[in-house]
Amino acid sequence: MVKVIGNNTPALKTGDPEPKLAKGKARIYSNRFCPYSERALLYAAAKGFEVEIVNINLKEKPEWYFSKHPQGKVPAFERDGEIVIESSIIPDYLDDIYPSSAILPTDPYEKAKQRIMLEQAAPVTTTFFGLYAVNKDKLEGEARFAKLKAVEDALDGAEKLLKDKYFGGSTAGYADWLLFPFFERIAIFSALLDFSSPFPGDRWPALSAWWARISVHPAVAAVTQPPALHHEFIEGFLSGKPVNDIGI
Amino acid sequence: MVKVIGNNTPALKTGDPEPKLAKGKARIYSNRFCPYSERALLYAAAKGFEVEIVNINLKEKPEWYFSKHPQGKVPAFERDGEIVIESSIIPDYLDDIYPSSAILPTDPYEKAKQRIMLEQAAPVTTTFFGLYAVNKDKLEGEARFAKLKAVEDALDGAEKLLKDKYFGGSTAGYADWLLFPFFERIAIFSALLDFSSPFPGDRWPALSAWWARISVHPAVAAVTQPPALHHEFIEGFLSGKPVNDIGI
Repeated sequence: MVKVIGNNTPALKTGDPEPKLAKGKARIYSNRFCPYSERALLYAAAKGFEVEIVNINLKEKPEWYFSKHPQGKVPAFERDGEIVIESSIIPDYLDDIYPSSAILPTDPYEKAKQRIMLEQAAPVTTTFFGLYAVNKDKLEGEARFAKLKAVEDALDGAEKLLKDKYFGGSTAGYADWLLFPFFERIAIFSALLDFSSPFPGDRWPALSAWWARISVHPAVAAVTQPPALHHEFIEGFLSGKPVNDIGI
Repeated sequence: MVKVIGNNTPALKTGDPEPKLAKGKARIYSNRFCPYSERALLYAAAKGFEVEIVNINLKEKPEWYFSKHPQGKVPAFERDGEIVIESSIIPDYLDDIYPSSAILPTDPYEKAKQRIMLEQAAPVTTTFFGLYAVNKDKLEGEARFAKLKAVEDALDGAEKLLKDKYFGGSTAGYADWLLFPFFERIAIFSALLDFSSPFPGDRWPALSAWWARISVHPAVAAVTQPPALHHEFIEGFLSGKPVNDIGI
């Protein structure tokens, strides 16, 4: 089912030529540790169409990459000369061009509800940066408490939103895939939160069950990186020297 | 063509009862000076379906309004018990339920390009707040310069994106309506920028021509408030005492 090809290939950097893309073939420009790229990868993997990944070194970007994205950011999707950027725009586009595997509901209200769900859970996608700040700036006392509390509040909010097996309902949906990379990073750095497990079931029973369920989804297995590599990447990232090709 | 009803009615506040909404009738919960509400109003006016506006006092919110929006924010759209919130979600939903007046293109790539356009012009939607800060905090020197320069940089970016008569192409489109309220507020407070006109044509020729064109669109005439009322509202807003019903 999963046809994401080349996710663990070295990141292309300044001086590297642009790899040729054959007619009809789909490609995602990505970075193995970027949560926004991961949204596009998960969505593609969950849909199950064949797509080639080209990793981009975000510190030393290939010159030609700016013709794909004006600011040289990832992710970007390309097929037959059509380039679509932004992790919040690519999923809709993928559903439009591969409608048989559409993840967003076709019913207008059900579709809007998925978008509202993502928007209401948005604190999860922003507060997790606070965990990096706690590490990087070695925050203590009040400042540390405030950052960690913001994450816990975001989890409280998500817990209330999760009324079924998944944010998308009885199966993983749009909001699940766009939120997953951020929950994943909270889980990976949850030691900072003094959690016994990523999302302890006594405090967040719905999230805890969701996490157990979605973690074993084939799309997650296909595109995510092991926690140990995330830890190694973040150490480099926080010291200003991100290493792109860890573990490959 | 324009059928937006009741835009200039007093804002409902704590204690006021919920007005009954008849079957099949559409309603937007709004606030006359909120740029996010204005997005929904403009989009509805440009589409031309009949919609009733219910204004909400955002300082003293009616109790029942939290059943429409969990945080009590505006805008929200309601019809036949379906409630859709968020100014970035309502337009898609309106195109889905009133497809004959769809503003977003049906072609997937053209649609994605409209969303990307909005995203790329997003600095216009955030930097304008800096003009309020300059006023409120009576910023001087470096701090004042930084805020005003951020707005000018955002306008430079928008100028580059505007390659046709409108952001949407030869006619006003999705990106035009979602960006308009923010350009409008920059125009209203452009005296701070020492501009001779809202968007001087010698610096921003495309934006200047766009502004002249869109300002006379029937949808703009139908839902916007006169600059003098905006000035009066902002004065109250910055002093912590926003007056909702100015001019009615």
